[in-house]
Amino acid sequence: MNYKNIERSQLEQMLSQEQKAYKKLVKKGVSVDMTRGRPCKEQLQIAMPMLENAGKCNFMMSGIDARNYGEPAGLKQARELFAQFFGVKADEVIVCDGSSLDIMYNVVQFALQFGILGSTPWNKLDKVKFICPAPGYDRHFAICQNFGIDMITVPMLSDGPDMDLVERICKDDESVKGIWCVPKYSNPTGITFSDKVVERMANLKPAAKDFRVFWDNAYCLHSLYDEDVKLKNIMDAAKKAGNQDMIYEFCSTAKITFAGSGVAAFASSQNNVNDLIKRLFFKKINPNKVNQALHVEFLKDIDNVKEIMKKHADILRPKFELFDEKMTEAFSNVENVKWSKPLGGYFISVDVPHCAKRIVELASGAGVKFTAAGSTFPYGIDDNDSNIRIAPSVPSMEEMSFAVDVLVESIKIALCEYYAK
Amino acid sequence: MNYKNIERSQLEQMLSQEQKAYKKLVKKGVSVDMTRGRPCKEQLQIAMPMLENAGKCNFMMSGIDARNYGEPAGLKQARELFAQFFGVKADEVIVCDGSSLDIMYNVVQFALQFGILGSTPWNKLDKVKFICPAPGYDRHFAICQNFGIDMITVPMLSDGPDMDLVERICKDDESVKGIWCVPKYSNPTGITFSDKVVERMANLKPAAKDFRVFWDNAYCLHSLYDEDVKLKNIMDAAKKAGNQDMIYEFCSTAKITFAGSGVAAFASSQNNVNDLIKRLFFKKINPNKVNQALHVEFLKDIDNVKEIMKKHADILRPKFELFDEKMTEAFSNVENVKWSKPLGGYFISVDVPHCAKRIVELASGAGVKFTAAGSTFPYGIDDNDSNIRIAPSVPSMEEMSFAVDVLVESIKIALCEYYAK
Repeated sequence: MNYKNIERSQLEQMLSQEQKAYKKLVKKGVSVDMTRGRPCKEQLQIAMPMLENAGKCNFMMSGIDARNYGEPAGLKQARELFAQFFGVKADEVIVCDGSSLDIMYNVVQFALQFGILGSTPWNKLDKVKFICPAPGYDRHFAICQNFGIDMITVPMLSDGPDMDLVERICKDDESVKGIWCVPKYSNPTGITFSDKVVERMANLKPAAKDFRVFWDNAYCLHSLYDEDVKLKNIMDAAKKAGNQDMIYEFCSTAKITFAGSGVAAFASSQNNVNDLIKRLFFKKINPNKVNQALHVEFLKDIDNVKEIMKKHADILRPKFELFDEKMTEAFSNVENVKWSKPLGGYFISVDVPHCAKRIVELASGAGVKFTAAGSTFPYGIDDNDSNIRIAPSVPSMEEMSFAVDVLVESIKIALCEYYAK
Repeated sequence: MNYKNIERSQLEQMLSQEQKAYKKLVKKGVSVDMTRGRPCKEQLQIAMPMLENAGKCNFMMSGIDARNYGEPAGLKQARELFAQFFGVKADEVIVCDGSSLDIMYNVVQFALQFGILGSTPWNKLDKVKFICPAPGYDRHFAICQNFGIDMITVPMLSDGPDMDLVERICKDDESVKGIWCVPKYSNPTGITFSDKVVERMANLKPAAKDFRVFWDNAYCLHSLYDEDVKLKNIMDAAKKAGNQDMIYEFCSTAKITFAGSGVAAFASSQNNVNDLIKRLFFKKINPNKVNQALHVEFLKDIDNVKEIMKKHADILRPKFELFDEKMTEAFSNVENVKWSKPLGGYFISVDVPHCAKRIVELASGAGVKFTAAGSTFPYGIDDNDSNIRIAPSVPSMEEMSFAVDVLVESIKIALCEYYAK
């Protein structure tokens, strides 16, 4: 079924019916916030043993007292742990404070102020442009907008960014300096870049020597199911291509331990790591190594982290599945409505062309807050007014059920309104 | 006695004697690191109850779960606590991660990239200059050097910077954008700014509207004795003068809880605080609020912090006093050697004109590392080659005793060498 083929009179009849159902939902007076990818309370409990055992933690790590100054690149043991996250060597890793966004912001600001490995500071160039696969992460785009970096939107396909376009855009234009990627369980579409896409990304031949791939592997271990989707190791591929200086990798424990109070890390070539350590010297004596030591003791190694992530998955999976069930029930035969069925990460992406703004508005009127429509696109401009990002982690199952009921009614009303015009 | 008045032959005789004593010290093969103001192990133990009780901490604070995203300006309770440190209102405070240096660096970088409250970004100006009272904190000067900000050295007197000079320098020159101050138990001279100096600082009439006083109150509660030296509240004075936008205040718990893993804070006018929160939005979702909650529970209030600081003082005071005793024994009658007798903070400042580099070199040769001579001055240039910064916190009493013996011999040798030339 496609709303486009329904006659106006019938649409109007449907609309009045849906509005009645919508009003019933409004009357319930429930409030659900699904704007951001925040862990829920039950997830936050998973990491409590880290704090419960904090007093017993051994802060003497390879002769370093984690409680005192020193180690600007982070505790050796923390670098070793995150090297396993990234699949790189420990000396290719810098472990920082809790926010990977902060590291991304800093490396962009460093490039603007100082250039990269001797290149012209970006502040001194007429134009700086970034490639922004969309829909994507609003905070990436916000960094660009904040610095006046031009954003070139390229479509995010089911296996990653449209690489034909990406290759073409960076090949001849020296002002193109970067591309934002969330390569695994992508924010918001949930897709994972295919081997082919990773391979092509690692083999880019950008005109700008200081072009960087911002590889934000925020959901590297965040599978919803036992079987993890494999993401090809981009650093291995880049090394083979002699392109290792082109890759900046990021990750954090924001959704493993505590959101905004975890540990974040950066990985890149030895050149870039040394350059960054040199820059960080002027900024900070060292990151919070007490927090790093607590994380090392609690997380132990990559296998143990995977066990911890299963506990997160057990909490999150039913919410994702409930969403899919209810959406399938409502729209399995409706061509106008598409939604992702992610195998990991924090988001579900819903597409209803021409109706996203209206749907978010209607849902809000019934107490359910979604991320503002358009915010998954550069400059907040979704040409099709199509994409809605759903963050199912915070609500309880009951709230989730209500929220999807509201979403379903909002979609139905918006579609009737749109096609009855 | 003044080495200048001793005859050459006698100096040579003295030198050969001191060299013998020096060689004996070298033979002991002891290593002591007094380069940085780091807390010692015993001090780090003071804050261990914070970690031991971490599991019992109440992370629900005024309806906010400290373990989740949110509160970019820091936990309300943390802002209230630091408001007491600064003597300002809670909404004039932003509480960040562990490093106050990081906040200072960031606000300078924000000013360079974006300007302050609508002023021209400093990056777009031909010249940016900072006033640097010296001797001062090397990391302040390093920020300037890193950004290519010109440093104008003004003498640090016994009651603060030479304010006649400071007033004159900033009055007519719009490129003068800031001044670095460690107003209490100053790094490295240990002095506290007098009421008159604070008053004049708060009443500066700089040509540049975006001139800022960087008030790094790193040692605000770090008295060595029961009676604390009072520092006049600069924000009160600035408000009276209508100058509240001109003041940036900084402090941290680096030397209250854990060095580099504490909590740092910024205080300023409502205008500046709002501006900074707006800038920080693009950088970080929030600071580590788990750490802030632990600090709030452990530190409680300003009176309790003062009790904690007495424990630090009890550990530090004997080291400072041992230093003074041994230096008095060696040099009480020697006009060429001066040293500070600080009532708080982390440093002792020694002045031996024309000999600082040689003394640090000699001490290093006997296993005792001091901060590089000159580093307390902009560009590392101490015109008189006079100042040595001593950080007595780390060594044990035994090591301290050895280190002062080495310093005494190194001074004697350097003076003999210099005046025998």
